[in-house]
Amino acid sequence: MKKKPELPERSFKLTLEYDGAAFFGFQRQPGKRTVQSELEKALSKLFNRRTKIKAASGRTDTGVHAVHQVVHIRAVTVLPARRIQAGLNYYLPQEAAVREVTEVPSDFHARFSAKSKVYEYRIWNDPVRSPLRARHFLHVPRPLDVAAMKSAAKIFIGKHDFSAFCSTNSAVRDPVRRIHSFKIVKRGPEIILRVRANGFLYHMVRNLAGALIEAGYGRLKPEDLKRFLAARSRKNAFFNAPAHGLSLIDVTY
Amino acid sequence: MKKKPELPERSFKLTLEYDGAAFFGFQRQPGKRTVQSELEKALSKLFNRRTKIKAASGRTDTGVHAVHQVVHIRAVTVLPARRIQAGLNYYLPQEAAVREVTEVPSDFHARFSAKSKVYEYRIWNDPVRSPLRARHFLHVPRPLDVAAMKSAAKIFIGKHDFSAFCSTNSAVRDPVRRIHSFKIVKRGPEIILRVRANGFLYHMVRNLAGALIEAGYGRLKPEDLKRFLAARSRKNAFFNAPAHGLSLIDVTY
Repeated sequence: MKKKPELPERSFKLTLEYDGAAFFGFQRQPGKRTVQSELEKALSKLFNRRTKIKAASGRTDTGVHAVHQVVHIRAVTVLPARRIQAGLNYYLPQEAAVREVTEVPSDFHARFSAKSKVYEYRIWNDPVRSPLRARHFLHVPRPLDVAAMKSAAKIFIGKHDFSAFCSTNSAVRDPVRRIHSFKIVKRGPEIILRVRANGFLYHMVRNLAGALIEAGYGRLKPEDLKRFLAARSRKNAFFNAPAHGLSLIDVTY
Repeated sequence: MKKKPELPERSFKLTLEYDGAAFFGFQRQPGKRTVQSELEKALSKLFNRRTKIKAASGRTDTGVHAVHQVVHIRAVTVLPARRIQAGLNYYLPQEAAVREVTEVPSDFHARFSAKSKVYEYRIWNDPVRSPLRARHFLHVPRPLDVAAMKSAAKIFIGKHDFSAFCSTNSAVRDPVRRIHSFKIVKRGPEIILRVRANGFLYHMVRNLAGALIEAGYGRLKPEDLKRFLAARSRKNAFFNAPAHGLSLIDVTY
């Protein structure tokens, strides 16, 4: 006879920070150290039963960092949220941490409830590499025209079919996304691209960053980007800027 | 018969950046990967003859980072400074880079000509660790009283015998140093200690950082620090804050 659980299942929202260099991306993969597999190991130890995450706001690729990634779990437990956080941080490797745990209604979904996400792409624009930034910045030795990058970024703001900026091996039913803002900030040789959208296609931020770097070189004009965007062809897939410059910064609900 | 060099020896000042986590400190050590040994390997390859550095502004310990370390070399070469820089960056490992090369008069000395040096000690003061800051910040989970730290830091400003803040295994003839400024800046959970002095004793910044952390806990008052400073006893050596939070930021000449 199957025993009924004595306690109701509860839902929790977990906010994670991790160093992308230490994992083979977010998603579970057999035999690889991924954020999901390490988190599920920690959850299973803490709750003393096999526990999986229900969903993440999105999967980050190998090398992509997260300042603020969100997942949700369900668990039968009497532990308060802060004890769950402390327990997970005890079991997780040093390169990942649970920054916040909050109990949420059972209909909360880390991916489907997300209203917007923010990514940052970081560029070190200097002839000489910066060893202290090597893990989090793309080194671009040739000077970039930041004004040209800003003009080009404006093209992307608003609701568009971003098929041209999606890697070809992805199959998305709806390639339309709305970019709320696209800010470019220069602080000395650091150039930070900060984009907020209601969602992103596969490799979209890295393709957009690649296109803006081309714009910064003067090789692509805003008109070219407009044309590519309108063509919606994945064959035009852009220079996919390397993963290590990319960080997931925020998810809002 | 010994051949005379056809060209005069020239002196160069090299400014280096390196990630302390990648090296066993600055100073050459047999069989260890140090900044000095990697730089001397690169110099010897570039000049096609065994070339050593003449001096560094100071030696950084294992794990200590440098945004701006200065060394000087002498070499018989026709290469302009920027070609020397490019050549060294080609041969150096990715975790180190020569940020600047300038030709200097033959009496320039990286250590003895230095007027002041600036170090930063970085603290992540939050109950939860920050994986993205793990390599450059000391994680202090308990809340620190930054106002108390600022009051305590004022004690150190000026000319003092810093024997009490020097690790015991060092033998310095003159333990008097002048601290020009000691700034403490809090940005959210980040606390940055920034100290400028005409020089530092062995482990001095890490001992000062340790003392200020104790002050931030409320365990040491400014009067205690005054008393320790006056006692000049190395037996009082303080909590030596870990190396990875420390960065050499600037050297002025």
